[in-house]
Amino acid sequence: MKSSRNCLLWNLRVSLVLLVVLFGATNARAQDPLPSWNDGPAKQAILAFVKDTTEKSSPKYVEPADRIATFDQDGTLWTEHPLYAQGMFALTRVAEMAPKHPEWKQKEPFKSVLAGDHAAMGKFTEGDWMQIVAATHAGMSTEVFQGLVSDWLAKAKAPRFDRPFTDLIFQPMLEVMQYLRANGFRTYIVTGGGQEFVRTYSEKVYGVPPEQVVGSSIVTTYDNKSGKPVLMREPKVFFIDDGPGKAIGINLFIGKRPYAAFGNTAGDAQMLEWTQAGDGARLEMLVLHDDAKREYAYGPAVNLPDTHVGTFSEALLTEATKNAWVVISMKNDWKRIFKFDQ
Amino acid sequence: MKSSRNCLLWNLRVSLVLLVVLFGATNARAQDPLPSWNDGPAKQAILAFVKDTTEKSSPKYVEPADRIATFDQDGTLWTEHPLYAQGMFALTRVAEMAPKHPEWKQKEPFKSVLAGDHAAMGKFTEGDWMQIVAATHAGMSTEVFQGLVSDWLAKAKAPRFDRPFTDLIFQPMLEVMQYLRANGFRTYIVTGGGQEFVRTYSEKVYGVPPEQVVGSSIVTTYDNKSGKPVLMREPKVFFIDDGPGKAIGINLFIGKRPYAAFGNTAGDAQMLEWTQAGDGARLEMLVLHDDAKREYAYGPAVNLPDTHVGTFSEALLTEATKNAWVVISMKNDWKRIFKFDQ
Repeated sequence: MKSSRNCLLWNLRVSLVLLVVLFGATNARAQDPLPSWNDGPAKQAILAFVKDTTEKSSPKYVEPADRIATFDQDGTLWTEHPLYAQGMFALTRVAEMAPKHPEWKQKEPFKSVLAGDHAAMGKFTEGDWMQIVAATHAGMSTEVFQGLVSDWLAKAKAPRFDRPFTDLIFQPMLEVMQYLRANGFRTYIVTGGGQEFVRTYSEKVYGVPPEQVVGSSIVTTYDNKSGKPVLMREPKVFFIDDGPGKAIGINLFIGKRPYAAFGNTAGDAQMLEWTQAGDGARLEMLVLHDDAKREYAYGPAVNLPDTHVGTFSEALLTEATKNAWVVISMKNDWKRIFKFDQ
Repeated sequence: MKSSRNCLLWNLRVSLVLLVVLFGATNARAQDPLPSWNDGPAKQAILAFVKDTTEKSSPKYVEPADRIATFDQDGTLWTEHPLYAQGMFALTRVAEMAPKHPEWKQKEPFKSVLAGDHAAMGKFTEGDWMQIVAATHAGMSTEVFQGLVSDWLAKAKAPRFDRPFTDLIFQPMLEVMQYLRANGFRTYIVTGGGQEFVRTYSEKVYGVPPEQVVGSSIVTTYDNKSGKPVLMREPKVFFIDDGPGKAIGINLFIGKRPYAAFGNTAGDAQMLEWTQAGDGARLEMLVLHDDAKREYAYGPAVNLPDTHVGTFSEALLTEATKNAWVVISMKNDWKRIFKFDQ
């Protein structure tokens, strides 16, 4: 009887200890808003920034209406290597349209695209790309364009991973966006890519609604000849939201200075400068692609000047160091990169 | 004793009746979201639209994320007669800057402005106005410009009323904005006027934050030579948010089609067409200035083609009738126009 009672007590005690341990662990996990991040200066910088800007007692407290955070997309929120998703879309469109454009077989830049000449494509100028964009992104209504993008996204597969492009979202960055939103921040995408392209999937993929996507755009014109108004996409650049254009675009579209900005290339430098020039607590971060095993390594991570447009250059690394911007090492700071990683 | 008791009962009864009457009246007033509107088709159209789009059981229910309403500013939300506030600002700036520009005395359009020649100013072309805008709105940083606008607004007085321009907000329209916001709509200003100009006061005056102001803009450039980045305003048009530009601007800045749109001139026609082309419940309204006593009467209300840029033309009235847009008569539909009206 006594031993049986002891046994019962023992079991109870063990159960209680287990409960405390389990509850504690669950609680700790629930309390970590950035579970895909390893502990380190990058994670600590994000946590400290949110604490500084949202705790009422903080001298750096920011009113909810002013809590703006801006994110570059390609290379910052998802994989951009070996080519931006939108570039892939354009190349697919060239191939699809080629039968109706026999002249493209002899005409650059289309000739190289159709021949799959990656070396030549790597050397395309902005003018070359603009010709491709004009041929593939214009001459149709905004609605038709959005339909083309959605259809393409649903079936296209990213190189190396053989998965939809939208699977290649960086899970740690998604957690940062969600964490900031849970703390009253509005998260904007500020991309050098096409505004209308990104808006097609931004809400579903990032939880960012169309009105919070700032990007590059071509001219649109209003046509109501048939009594059913449409906006037609014209083969002419309207706004390039890259480099200085990111600071300009933020002022144009948001009219407020961000408190946090995230990028990964020289095209994001001015966005980070503009953010940092505000007073109070500001956070500037750059994603460094140094994980050849799980994603890609390029730029200064491999001591190689990358041919990729607007890459994380040595100059950017120097500016980041000078300005105390936080560099995120994908290899060291991220416990996992993609949702499908184990 | 009996009479005294009767008296007491009588008093009680009177008090109770009074209480019921007063409580009932207060309650009715609290329940009317549009107290400055007379009952009539315009008020009913607004109430029906909100019911249709926000009641879960309605076949025309709209998700809160999609509840977008757009408002022209000049003449729709505040008085635009005899000249837009921003025009007044520009003319004041010309006078202030004149001592440093002696050549303006001989050079149009500045000459007419400095001479106070209203007849000549009434005939200014868009090119003339652009010269004035270039001289008065550009060549400075965005911050300096916002400071100039704020300083001017604080001391400028509107003609006829001798009050600050911000007193000339239409109280009934403010109630519509507040009513829509209380029902989950986001209210955007979509103005032919300067985006940066309106953003200076939109939050304080209309409760519309800067990121919900879409307007015309001039080119800005990014300058970080001194290590403190600024955006410089250049004397070059970037975007004209008027006429077709309103539909284009809505797609560019918001990326969603409005469910309700409010305007007062031909420059708003495409915004209303674009709104109406969507499915489900849509509301298009035009403010008709037909109240010479309390505000102004111009356009078709007085059977006079008005020289005012983009006025409520006969053609617009014809289109409104054809499309069943709701015309708001300031005279008949509005119980009071300004907050200071009794």
